[in-house]
Amino acid sequence: MAVTADHVVALVGGVGGAKLAFGLARVLPPEALTIIVNTGDDFRHYGLHISPDLDTVTYTLSGLVDPVNGWGIRGDTTAMLEAMRRLGDEPWFRLGDQDLATHLYRTQALAEGQKLTAITRRITASLGILHAILPMTDAPVATIVDTLEFGELPFQTYFVRHRWQPTLRGLRFEGAEKAELTHEVESAIRQADVILIAPSNPWLSIAPMLAVTGMRRALLSRQVPRVAVSPIVAGQAVKGPAAKLMAELGFRVSPATVADFYGEIINGFVTDVQDQDLPVQTAHRWTANTIMMSERDRVVFAEGLLDWIMQEDWA
Amino acid sequence: MAVTADHVVALVGGVGGAKLAFGLARVLPPEALTIIVNTGDDFRHYGLHISPDLDTVTYTLSGLVDPVNGWGIRGDTTAMLEAMRRLGDEPWFRLGDQDLATHLYRTQALAEGQKLTAITRRITASLGILHAILPMTDAPVATIVDTLEFGELPFQTYFVRHRWQPTLRGLRFEGAEKAELTHEVESAIRQADVILIAPSNPWLSIAPMLAVTGMRRALLSRQVPRVAVSPIVAGQAVKGPAAKLMAELGFRVSPATVADFYGEIINGFVTDVQDQDLPVQTAHRWTANTIMMSERDRVVFAEGLLDWIMQEDWA
Repeated sequence: MAVTADHVVALVGGVGGAKLAFGLARVLPPEALTIIVNTGDDFRHYGLHISPDLDTVTYTLSGLVDPVNGWGIRGDTTAMLEAMRRLGDEPWFRLGDQDLATHLYRTQALAEGQKLTAITRRITASLGILHAILPMTDAPVATIVDTLEFGELPFQTYFVRHRWQPTLRGLRFEGAEKAELTHEVESAIRQADVILIAPSNPWLSIAPMLAVTGMRRALLSRQVPRVAVSPIVAGQAVKGPAAKLMAELGFRVSPATVADFYGEIINGFVTDVQDQDLPVQTAHRWTANTIMMSERDRVVFAEGLLDWIMQEDWA
Repeated sequence: MAVTADHVVALVGGVGGAKLAFGLARVLPPEALTIIVNTGDDFRHYGLHISPDLDTVTYTLSGLVDPVNGWGIRGDTTAMLEAMRRLGDEPWFRLGDQDLATHLYRTQALAEGQKLTAITRRITASLGILHAILPMTDAPVATIVDTLEFGELPFQTYFVRHRWQPTLRGLRFEGAEKAELTHEVESAIRQADVILIAPSNPWLSIAPMLAVTGMRRALLSRQVPRVAVSPIVAGQAVKGPAAKLMAELGFRVSPATVADFYGEIINGFVTDVQDQDLPVQTAHRWTANTIMMSERDRVVFAEGLLDWIMQEDWA
């Protein structure tokens, strides 16, 4: 049975996820795509509520993103951070001056009692984004990393301050059990005829989303293609600590480990052409060039992925 | 009886007050000067705790101040505000990017439960200021302006958003009754052998300070020179709405009205040379060039003022 792609839901983290989201948004009309974003990395810094993955996806889809870093705003300045240094602070998290507007806007709206989902919709609409970008939940969820060297660390302290160098022993997602799916996330998944998991870090970016109460059940309830893209290519992470972390947790650094990690959540898996001969436990498999360097790469990949899904027999 | 100026206390507001504070800080060693600053103008904006008068005095004494405006930081940029406009906000209060560091630093420290006095000391020390700059109180006090056109307005809405154009009918200082003098303010006044009131707006900048519980009594308990400098020169305000406001409140726009407003709080008054023939009800009076255009003017004025006070017989 072939499927349509009238309602595609993509679960995404930061930079890698934003690339897939960008490609999908170029290929699908606004009503056919919902991007659900990890907020387990959210944290407070200088009193601001910062949502790194939401911002990366938002800046990427609006075209504001810094193309070199893949996050932050192109040409942004750091006058505030330099002035903070003058006040005796040693900044470790980069906050551009333009970027600050997003954090201030969000922080104030949250303080007024508005929901992160509604705030995100206003921010994305103001920046000309027509596709829906949804936080995975409106409730606070915090990824906590247990490290050999420092014990438990808040995610950004591990990831940015210590540049993911500490040895990871475990992970937990504080608040995930009490967090609930929003009406918007639930409704998008309920209508989904394709569910995608971006080539984001499975443990750091996707696991917090799967930990939100109701998320696994909502995904499993959909008898549709549920396809993850491997973030591991040729034994390495495309970006970030995925490979290092897998090794530290005692896993083999392989797409097969990623597919096993997602288990019953997925029924299809995409590996890079470099890994086409590697065995992976999955009902449906596609192989493609998954390294999205240019904007064109992203569009080509998204098109190919959707074409494969619509041609495959998912009966 | 001549006096010494071993412990000078100056009550100051924003730009006009900062000029006197600057002159005094050039003339007096750190241990001989305490600058007490109005915080009735403090407000929250984008979730930030902004203390305009504290910042103006701090930036002026540290040399960071924008010399054209007399407030804000020289050469500061507005990337955040421009990005805020992109998010659909219409900024009406200017917040420079460097300036933001001060607001973020203060807001976060207050949220952590630190006192405004302690935070201000850290900020000023970081910027190389050796003289004590104290907020008038650690408690929240908000100047509320009653206007003919809009009814009651928060101070900054009246002052900045409406550019002090609404007709003023009255004023109140919300929280002033419950506010208390800090140990630092009380101690500085107790040791003061000279008390100065800067040529700031008596109703908008000085009155909130006098409204703090215990402030009047503390000042009156000091049998020392208590000298105010007229912000009204030749029938006009040197800067800002003082003259307009006096007319709206039904007062004659004259230094004599200012001296009457301070009443028993002062026993000495300084008028500009342009007003030397105007009668003023005061026990002691000095006349000088009070228009402090250049940094040199401020130092000359501060020197002259202290010289006069030390030579005058206050018995």
